[in-house]
Amino acid sequence: MYDLLIQNPAVLQFDGAVATVLPTHSIAVSNGRIAAIAPNISAGQAREVLDASGMLAVPGFVNCHAHVPMGLFRGVAEDVLIERWFNDYIWPMESNLTEEDVYWGALLGLAEMIEAGVTTVADHYFAMDEVARAVEQAGTRALLAWAVFGGDGAQERLQDTVAFVERWQDAANGRIRAWLGPHSPYTCEPEFLKQVARQAQALGVGLHIHLSETAEQVRQSLAQHGKTPVAVAHEAGLFAVPTLAAHVAHPEQNDLELLRAGGVAVGSCPKTSMKLGTGVAPVPAMRQVGITVGLGSDGAASNNSYDMLEAARMMALVQKHMAGDPRVLPVSEALALATREGAKALGLGGVTGELREGFQADIVLFRLDAPHLTPQHNLAASLLYSARANDVDTVLVDGRVLMRNRQLLTIDKAQVLREVSERMERLVQRLPNRRIQTYPT
Amino acid sequence: MYDLLIQNPAVLQFDGAVATVLPTHSIAVSNGRIAAIAPNISAGQAREVLDASGMLAVPGFVNCHAHVPMGLFRGVAEDVLIERWFNDYIWPMESNLTEEDVYWGALLGLAEMIEAGVTTVADHYFAMDEVARAVEQAGTRALLAWAVFGGDGAQERLQDTVAFVERWQDAANGRIRAWLGPHSPYTCEPEFLKQVARQAQALGVGLHIHLSETAEQVRQSLAQHGKTPVAVAHEAGLFAVPTLAAHVAHPEQNDLELLRAGGVAVGSCPKTSMKLGTGVAPVPAMRQVGITVGLGSDGAASNNSYDMLEAARMMALVQKHMAGDPRVLPVSEALALATREGAKALGLGGVTGELREGFQADIVLFRLDAPHLTPQHNLAASLLYSARANDVDTVLVDGRVLMRNRQLLTIDKAQVLREVSERMERLVQRLPNRRIQTYPT
Repeated sequence: MYDLLIQNPAVLQFDGAVATVLPTHSIAVSNGRIAAIAPNISAGQAREVLDASGMLAVPGFVNCHAHVPMGLFRGVAEDVLIERWFNDYIWPMESNLTEEDVYWGALLGLAEMIEAGVTTVADHYFAMDEVARAVEQAGTRALLAWAVFGGDGAQERLQDTVAFVERWQDAANGRIRAWLGPHSPYTCEPEFLKQVARQAQALGVGLHIHLSETAEQVRQSLAQHGKTPVAVAHEAGLFAVPTLAAHVAHPEQNDLELLRAGGVAVGSCPKTSMKLGTGVAPVPAMRQVGITVGLGSDGAASNNSYDMLEAARMMALVQKHMAGDPRVLPVSEALALATREGAKALGLGGVTGELREGFQADIVLFRLDAPHLTPQHNLAASLLYSARANDVDTVLVDGRVLMRNRQLLTIDKAQVLREVSERMERLVQRLPNRRIQTYPT
Repeated sequence: MYDLLIQNPAVLQFDGAVATVLPTHSIAVSNGRIAAIAPNISAGQAREVLDASGMLAVPGFVNCHAHVPMGLFRGVAEDVLIERWFNDYIWPMESNLTEEDVYWGALLGLAEMIEAGVTTVADHYFAMDEVARAVEQAGTRALLAWAVFGGDGAQERLQDTVAFVERWQDAANGRIRAWLGPHSPYTCEPEFLKQVARQAQALGVGLHIHLSETAEQVRQSLAQHGKTPVAVAHEAGLFAVPTLAAHVAHPEQNDLELLRAGGVAVGSCPKTSMKLGTGVAPVPAMRQVGITVGLGSDGAASNNSYDMLEAARMMALVQKHMAGDPRVLPVSEALALATREGAKALGLGGVTGELREGFQADIVLFRLDAPHLTPQHNLAASLLYSARANDVDTVLVDGRVLMRNRQLLTIDKAQVLREVSERMERLVQRLPNRRIQTYPT
């Protein structure tokens, strides 16, 4: 007797490099895992049946780089240079955040992600206990890292993040994993990075860091250290533990070899990189040398959303554009980045990111009865190029239904929208210029 | 007494180059036009009241270049070079289309566009009486051009398209306008283009043509004529009438001057250009010299949708990416391209594309009570960077409600989806290779 039967959706699977769609299969779930996927499983074999006729079942999307609570700042700083974005808007606002703000911001972001079919997120922020509490409540899966900077007091801050890792490792029935989160080589001295690496090894965990997001960061690193940020991170010993590197938009040729040899995974954020004009990672070249690449949103203050279907589409389109070749990053590959490859990047290969027996039942059901998804010549292509996050009908994590018929079941959406709106009025008023930006800049 | 009052939405307007959002205004409609926009108009002043509290009212989006019935082929040919896309998939399928197929394909595309808030489309296809019938039924606004190629029998074909213009000019209560549609300089000889130009002048209409979509087209034109496609079109006299040029992704410097001097408007299709890897038009440079630019989808066989909000987002992001500067094509400008500037490109400036007294009441209401649109620091930015077509709740054209609460009122959606699905089974079977493409290529 199965716990749950998801009846009769089409099912997106990966056969090696190829995304295939099985027509009218059913997915049986037991103990939070996928127990069987087959064309004919009778309703009588399950305690609960969820009708998914005419829908498309896909693996829950994986967001490999986010600052989830930054949804609080969505729309505050638009179309400005990244330096101004940080200095005039984001850092002043972040310095005024309370732990409660972070909690409500995290719930806002998780609500948005569930509504968009994103079931796993690698988050990198502050006051991470609040984010962990929000994840526990929302029912999603997360790899959490408390961001830490170098400088005065770095030791104490590192110890706080170590305590966070110990507090939350494998919490929420194993849905939460915790890593260390050194912010970047440009905010952490090499000596401090070494300490973080040693600490990660002692804890037996990985780390999540920003590397080479902008060309300017690479130039400054070369000027200061005579090495790229990737080389600095490598020499500090970071790559001795599982490392998730956000962005890596400007790798030099030798960086690719360091990343590959170190088993470093990259979380690339195409929408933020395009929006800030900071350059998009050479993903096809990275994959060609064997680097694992997943997709990230970055924070919603720069993205401005947590929509990984959009990220996959954006990545496929911008890579074709950059190469001048429509064959680059085809449908199967782009969908894999948003699911299976993203899971691997977070050390969750075999756990989530695929619809296959033995994987956790992290499942998203898309409605297909819409003009923009008709006719159904090629459902994988429809998903990547035509579907929208709002077409997601149902979301499960560990076989538990978190959304059904677009109704969130673990988060009180009205309350979250109200709390966030009220808190933000206060935050924006504290900005140096006391008002949000007007257009054009 | 107004015919209709749209009560209490926020209202997106343009103040010159700047998009501004008026909080909680009401829009009064009489005789199909916007009669007033003001903070306090009482319900008693209108025969009908439509509650739009908490929503955002924006001008109906304008799609400046489409082949609407090509939604029939959505997903058939993915991630292939443009030559193969045409020769192996699209042209063989088009040669098997019936007029009825075109009609249902057009209804499919119009249903998708209404659901996405697109109220006006410049369409360029065959069997255009069927498209016109579909537009008449759907209740949207359209500028229709029957595509015509040169070669044997071109004279007769041109005369057929002239008859189409005469048959449909100002039909559907003035919602339909008809122009001529010479396909492109690479499919029409210069002598034939001259005849089309003379014919357009005699009719007092404009024309809609493809120009310089790919670098290869420019190279071939230079080899064959010693001139760019834009120069060929100019010398054939096309620019003596209002001309809407699709793509123009590869203009030479002198082309920009020809386009500007000729008052030629450009319909740029960022998603298709990225997806086919054929290059994106230098829109900021075009606008800087004074060329009117609107956004197009191209056909849904290459896009793969008719979502102009996505087109605006894609255009803003790809131009920032190409320039390496986030200040390029800011929020106000990108939103203007999808609305006011698009209307101008179609000769419909002052008619549609703005929410302002005297304009036709082509109005789209977005729901905002969603996590991905919260908090509301900047509604214009939320619209461009965070909203999705499915957030559209209500659509009006000429003050007539075409969709309310996402229910289409002029199109039987279930019937359209069924008709299209059945017809496509037959079409795909006639493809040379008898099956649709598998991945990867």
